[in-house]
Amino acid sequence: MTDERIVILAHEKFPDRAKTALGVMRYGDQDVRAVLDRDTAGDSVSDHVPDVADAPVVASFDDALAAADGDVDALYIGISPIGGEFDESWRDDVEAAIEAGCDVVSGLHYFLNEDAELAALADEHGVDLVDVREPADDLTVASGASRDVAADVVLTVGTDCSVGKMTASLEIVAAARERGIDAAFVPTGQTGIMIAGWGNPIDRVVSDFTAGAVEEMLVELGDDHDLLVVEGQGSIVHPAYSAVTCGILHGAMPDGLVLCHAAGREAVHGYESFSLPPLADYVDLYEGLAAPVNESRVVAGALNTKDVADDTAAANAVGEFADALGTPAADPVRDGADRIVDGIVDAGLGAE
Amino acid sequence: MTDERIVILAHEKFPDRAKTALGVMRYGDQDVRAVLDRDTAGDSVSDHVPDVADAPVVASFDDALAAADGDVDALYIGISPIGGEFDESWRDDVEAAIEAGCDVVSGLHYFLNEDAELAALADEHGVDLVDVREPADDLTVASGASRDVAADVVLTVGTDCSVGKMTASLEIVAAARERGIDAAFVPTGQTGIMIAGWGNPIDRVVSDFTAGAVEEMLVELGDDHDLLVVEGQGSIVHPAYSAVTCGILHGAMPDGLVLCHAAGREAVHGYESFSLPPLADYVDLYEGLAAPVNESRVVAGALNTKDVADDTAAANAVGEFADALGTPAADPVRDGADRIVDGIVDAGLGAE
Repeated sequence: MTDERIVILAHEKFPDRAKTALGVMRYGDQDVRAVLDRDTAGDSVSDHVPDVADAPVVASFDDALAAADGDVDALYIGISPIGGEFDESWRDDVEAAIEAGCDVVSGLHYFLNEDAELAALADEHGVDLVDVREPADDLTVASGASRDVAADVVLTVGTDCSVGKMTASLEIVAAARERGIDAAFVPTGQTGIMIAGWGNPIDRVVSDFTAGAVEEMLVELGDDHDLLVVEGQGSIVHPAYSAVTCGILHGAMPDGLVLCHAAGREAVHGYESFSLPPLADYVDLYEGLAAPVNESRVVAGALNTKDVADDTAAANAVGEFADALGTPAADPVRDGADRIVDGIVDAGLGAE
Repeated sequence: MTDERIVILAHEKFPDRAKTALGVMRYGDQDVRAVLDRDTAGDSVSDHVPDVADAPVVASFDDALAAADGDVDALYIGISPIGGEFDESWRDDVEAAIEAGCDVVSGLHYFLNEDAELAALADEHGVDLVDVREPADDLTVASGASRDVAADVVLTVGTDCSVGKMTASLEIVAAARERGIDAAFVPTGQTGIMIAGWGNPIDRVVSDFTAGAVEEMLVELGDDHDLLVVEGQGSIVHPAYSAVTCGILHGAMPDGLVLCHAAGREAVHGYESFSLPPLADYVDLYEGLAAPVNESRVVAGALNTKDVADDTAAANAVGEFADALGTPAADPVRDGADRIVDGIVDAGLGAE
């Protein structure tokens, strides 16, 4: 999926509620020719997001095609409503893309391939509907092979959902490569998969295969790189999603952990009657749970300070976070991940 | 599925490798009219298994039907080859059962309903093919509602797979009922579901829905009983299956845990390069992981002593296990679960 010329659908949600669109724009190799948002049509991406390549924001796929002089390979669905359903107001744009010979890439729970109309139209025009959240049908249980991969493995783990594990993972890979470390990103969620152009959507696999679906990716990549950075999911004390977190921890058998947290978060996002435990408890739980399968230590911290007022306050929050963990820490968005890579390298990880 | 007159297929595996058959015979309410095993045909069940209702062992479904004077409601697949595949040598018996108007109940990974021949034949004869391992399609993520169920909840947790969590759960329910406690069994695996006649096969649900599929069962039963005993799966440090274990722990939000272990087990079954950690580590891990979502303590232990030579050695092993946990313990098969229920009641659980 990488190196394509793409249009990203983000109707009524660009940029603040278009997490997938922004992830692809920030970290993907795709060439983004236009963003679809009927609310902000006429603006430019740079009016809203300063740190990505500019592109026009337009109201429809036909406008996007005109703006790109017809040079578009794919339409990406860059937003996800609660529940991951397909919004019928997008259908005209999706059909226009298919009719223009474009693939359509989606991370929705609603599978485009199971929509009879869209599937028939795609068939007629010879394009692919790519449902990145549909697991491969050859996944199976873990064999324990992750322990033997040649590369060092680092896993981002969180105090909660939506604290920035994917962003931290991608920034760690970028910062490690800057230092000459042969690092690769291992995606586990739909946005990560869209960015990387491959990967298993761990939260959608059969629960018995959770660890196995991670292992399969590590075994595939393990001989080709010195450092694999696995995108974590959820949190080990999340009332709904901890199974996914635990399966990734034991499936990846990481050599080091990077603990990710959002400054100021005190309760589980969306489950506010459940308080987050102290940071030290997370360290004990993640390390204690990892140890019987494969010893692993928290080697660095990533703090998401997007809700912190200014750079000084953010730097203070990062300093406190580092002190609490007793490791290097950074906000990978404000600071880059160089200090996080310090922690990884200090632990002896990432060498050839 | 309960109260049916059934025949159990266990070709070439009865009784020692027919775990599902034995579970249904020991704990189900079904009336077992015959067992199919072409290797031991001509014997009686009582020649091999002393503690269940007797029945003839026969070579084919037609023989079973004759032995039961035609009074059979269903054929149960009572064995599961490695991988959960369908053995083609069973097809004649399954077809004979369908043609005789019997439902067929299976816990295989291979879904009978996806076998075009069997599905067509079942349709023709108006019988049901019941794939207990196929999850309901309305499962979703947990909401956190398990914390609010009226009943007290006990979860059996293990040091490994195949240590007797299902058996312990069923024996606890039986012993609790003996004392007048209104207890119910909450099945999470295929044999438990066949015995109980309902339940979600947790290891086959989408990983994101692991906790939610447990919660859905507890919410359904929670107001109707004083004690719910949830069948645990796997182990929290299993290299392949810990995701399922963790999802059940947080989905059930138990008030008490019963730690299940097999005497003499030192390494993960089938993953022998992974050693089991000390018992005290399991207690810390299960309690530590439960606490941030819902406080829970190990209140009793269940030790499987089937590989221990005699009753004296088994009693010693149970005594040592109880000492290590600092709680009451028993082998629920040798001793019954009365001492385990002591631990549950001592913790204040199971009262109206």
